[in-house]
Amino acid sequence: MSKQIHLNAFSMNTIGHQSSGMWRHPRDRSAQYNTAEYWIDIAKILEAGLFDGLFLADVLGVYDVYGGDVSEALRTASQIPVNDPALIVPLMTAATKNLGFGLTATLSYEPPFTFARRISTLDQLTNGRLGWNIVTGYLNSAAKGLGLDNQPKHDTRYEIAGEYMEVVYKLWETSWEEGAVQRDAARGLFSDPSRVHKIRHDGQYFQLDAVHLCEPSPQRTPVLYQAGASTKGRAFAAGHAECVFIAGPSKQVIKPAVADIRACVRAAGRTTGSPLVFTLMTVITGRTDAEAEAKFAEYKRYISHSGALTLMSGWTGIDFSTYALDDKLQQIRNDAIHSAVDAFTVSDPDRVWTIREIAEFAGIGGTGAIIVGGPQRVADELQGWIQDTDIDGFNLAYVVAPETFSDFVEHVVPELQRRGVYKTSYAPGTLREKLFGAGPLLDETHPGGRHRLGRRELAA
Amino acid sequence: MSKQIHLNAFSMNTIGHQSSGMWRHPRDRSAQYNTAEYWIDIAKILEAGLFDGLFLADVLGVYDVYGGDVSEALRTASQIPVNDPALIVPLMTAATKNLGFGLTATLSYEPPFTFARRISTLDQLTNGRLGWNIVTGYLNSAAKGLGLDNQPKHDTRYEIAGEYMEVVYKLWETSWEEGAVQRDAARGLFSDPSRVHKIRHDGQYFQLDAVHLCEPSPQRTPVLYQAGASTKGRAFAAGHAECVFIAGPSKQVIKPAVADIRACVRAAGRTTGSPLVFTLMTVITGRTDAEAEAKFAEYKRYISHSGALTLMSGWTGIDFSTYALDDKLQQIRNDAIHSAVDAFTVSDPDRVWTIREIAEFAGIGGTGAIIVGGPQRVADELQGWIQDTDIDGFNLAYVVAPETFSDFVEHVVPELQRRGVYKTSYAPGTLREKLFGAGPLLDETHPGGRHRLGRRELAA
Repeated sequence: MSKQIHLNAFSMNTIGHQSSGMWRHPRDRSAQYNTAEYWIDIAKILEAGLFDGLFLADVLGVYDVYGGDVSEALRTASQIPVNDPALIVPLMTAATKNLGFGLTATLSYEPPFTFARRISTLDQLTNGRLGWNIVTGYLNSAAKGLGLDNQPKHDTRYEIAGEYMEVVYKLWETSWEEGAVQRDAARGLFSDPSRVHKIRHDGQYFQLDAVHLCEPSPQRTPVLYQAGASTKGRAFAAGHAECVFIAGPSKQVIKPAVADIRACVRAAGRTTGSPLVFTLMTVITGRTDAEAEAKFAEYKRYISHSGALTLMSGWTGIDFSTYALDDKLQQIRNDAIHSAVDAFTVSDPDRVWTIREIAEFAGIGGTGAIIVGGPQRVADELQGWIQDTDIDGFNLAYVVAPETFSDFVEHVVPELQRRGVYKTSYAPGTLREKLFGAGPLLDETHPGGRHRLGRRELAA
Repeated sequence: MSKQIHLNAFSMNTIGHQSSGMWRHPRDRSAQYNTAEYWIDIAKILEAGLFDGLFLADVLGVYDVYGGDVSEALRTASQIPVNDPALIVPLMTAATKNLGFGLTATLSYEPPFTFARRISTLDQLTNGRLGWNIVTGYLNSAAKGLGLDNQPKHDTRYEIAGEYMEVVYKLWETSWEEGAVQRDAARGLFSDPSRVHKIRHDGQYFQLDAVHLCEPSPQRTPVLYQAGASTKGRAFAAGHAECVFIAGPSKQVIKPAVADIRACVRAAGRTTGSPLVFTLMTVITGRTDAEAEAKFAEYKRYISHSGALTLMSGWTGIDFSTYALDDKLQQIRNDAIHSAVDAFTVSDPDRVWTIREIAEFAGIGGTGAIIVGGPQRVADELQGWIQDTDIDGFNLAYVVAPETFSDFVEHVVPELQRRGVYKTSYAPGTLREKLFGAGPLLDETHPGGRHRLGRRELAA
């Protein structure tokens, strides 16, 4: 059987997400992000298309690098307003049976004790369909919202994150042993106290002396996603992530990143097939190539250059408002090289990009590649990406929501199925079982799984 | 028109809630607390009965006073496991149109910035049906879960809570002015930056320098509930609460409490009709008095004495495991007077209670009064409580879930309607509008409302 393509939809509890300005498109519904109906409709579309999951990004701050304040982000609705993503998962849960949810949560600003409860609650309510995208935060404005002058330095953040993971693993994997929950009405025994353990953690950043408040959820630890692109981030991902999310405009950028991730995971001693690597991709499709191209041309009319550059400024730390739209990318590279900018020249060394072109590229679904075409062309391209870069699947960004997703489900999914590279039904079980054919719990080569097994050995 | 009776159902994202042991009853479904279906079913029952809301209690710790550890709480499922209540609100939202949600959230352990976002998100998803029960935490075990040796002293907690309220009012009421959100596609203007303000707060306990991440929700500040029974707690409630929740086994206990609350609110300079005062009540009903009494007798067989006393120990700080079930209450009163214990003797000065009797009383829905009877008797009793104590309504605890609620909706609601003391349809609008016939925003005599108006004056 050919390698199966994995698919997540990529969204956020906000307007436009990575397609600033597109909320002005008459068919875009993303400005309804704060209604139950919008998310329920999206979930149903994705489940009809057998998507593995909906990956929900998040930020706890604002994009205030462009122009030095939040004004342009507000005008263009560039990820502000942005609502809490955890609260839309239950809405979508009740409307679906198999769709997974990759929830982004920034661990830097919430105590592990309450966070662990929130996650266990969601994994239970979803019957084990929860993933957690581990983020350590990257906007200084978020730190200021939490009462800090600036966010901790990048490397310190990963140190904190490492200890945070240790604490939540202990809560999820160790506090309640297998068999702790008896639910034995005849004996009047709900939980067996001898199998429920206080977690005593006295670390550098976190202290804890408590039992986990929740009984074990189907997966205990949710499926772990990570999107770290830095060296420290990649080491962190290698240690913990079961799915890794990367982004880049071309195969030239993605291929070496995938190879590096797989090497890091092997070096970390994890022997099973994970992680699955997803790359960001925007697919604009229709019944034919011509129809898709016409749609692309129409979408482009709604791009917000300043909105796209507001996001790019936040991602790179470069204030793009100080450049003219017709300035050349080369000029910025001389000022401040950043991987997200550099990727454009790596992708196509002979091309001279202007700031306008960057905005028009990134304004359509962000910094991932864009594929435009009918079912055949899109399927060819996606298969080409799998083959040439060794990725496992795609985080599909939207341009117009939910049209980008429903178009994909209608036109591309059947073609991928015809080619035998996409499932025709969901696998049974939890998200971990669906993605890896194993589980529902973390395996013994994973640090979270080791926590659980450590407890078992203690008890023996 | 006679005074209308307000009704909340009282529950918690846990098993049995205040009726420990009742999960063993063959018809009780509360052990399904961690499924979507359970909560959706409850919400539909309550909305069919035109309940104002579902009041969701919460704790972030365990009941470990009884016997000095958590063992008995685990065995009897006495509020452990306990899941996050915020995540079940979206489930119920999608299944209802009018039911309100009174969400308990402990402000001591979460930064106001992220909490404010969570609440705004919920108020938007519910179309303005959210209430927030402000709790400052009361279990030492919760503090230990959050890395503190002990919780702050009671009075300090209210000082922190006061500053916390100031910060969240600023985020909800001041950060985004009226008219800040334009959603003007033609002009490409989503938000008007001149009307979105950074909240700069540099207080004793909290620092903030950020715009609120959410656009204004229908109510901005959710309807505020408070359940403080102490002097400081009552002063806090007088300043902030629109609904106050109290509990006691008899009218003798409740009547002076209501009078005191109303006097405190007048003293705080709030002139409008709020707060609504709800008292805890357990109603066991059926088609006839005899049927209800038979049901009550049957329920009693499932009381867990140790479970009820585990909860009582947590509430009072008295380790009831050190007494025999046939010990007299008088003995405990001599050891450690606590209002929750004292209330029993205040209610009936001539009665000598045993520990067993206390357990059997509190094991049926907690420390509120119990009414058992057919529709007529229950309606008589409820009307008597309204008349004699000046309360506005009831937080109805369950014994067997959701049977206690569905019985009430089936048998008592029609009788109350027939008597003209209960609505026959929901009022339009947000929860605040439904409860008070005014709103949707906090009025100008409320400290939260003053924050909003202060901004308006600044802008004029």
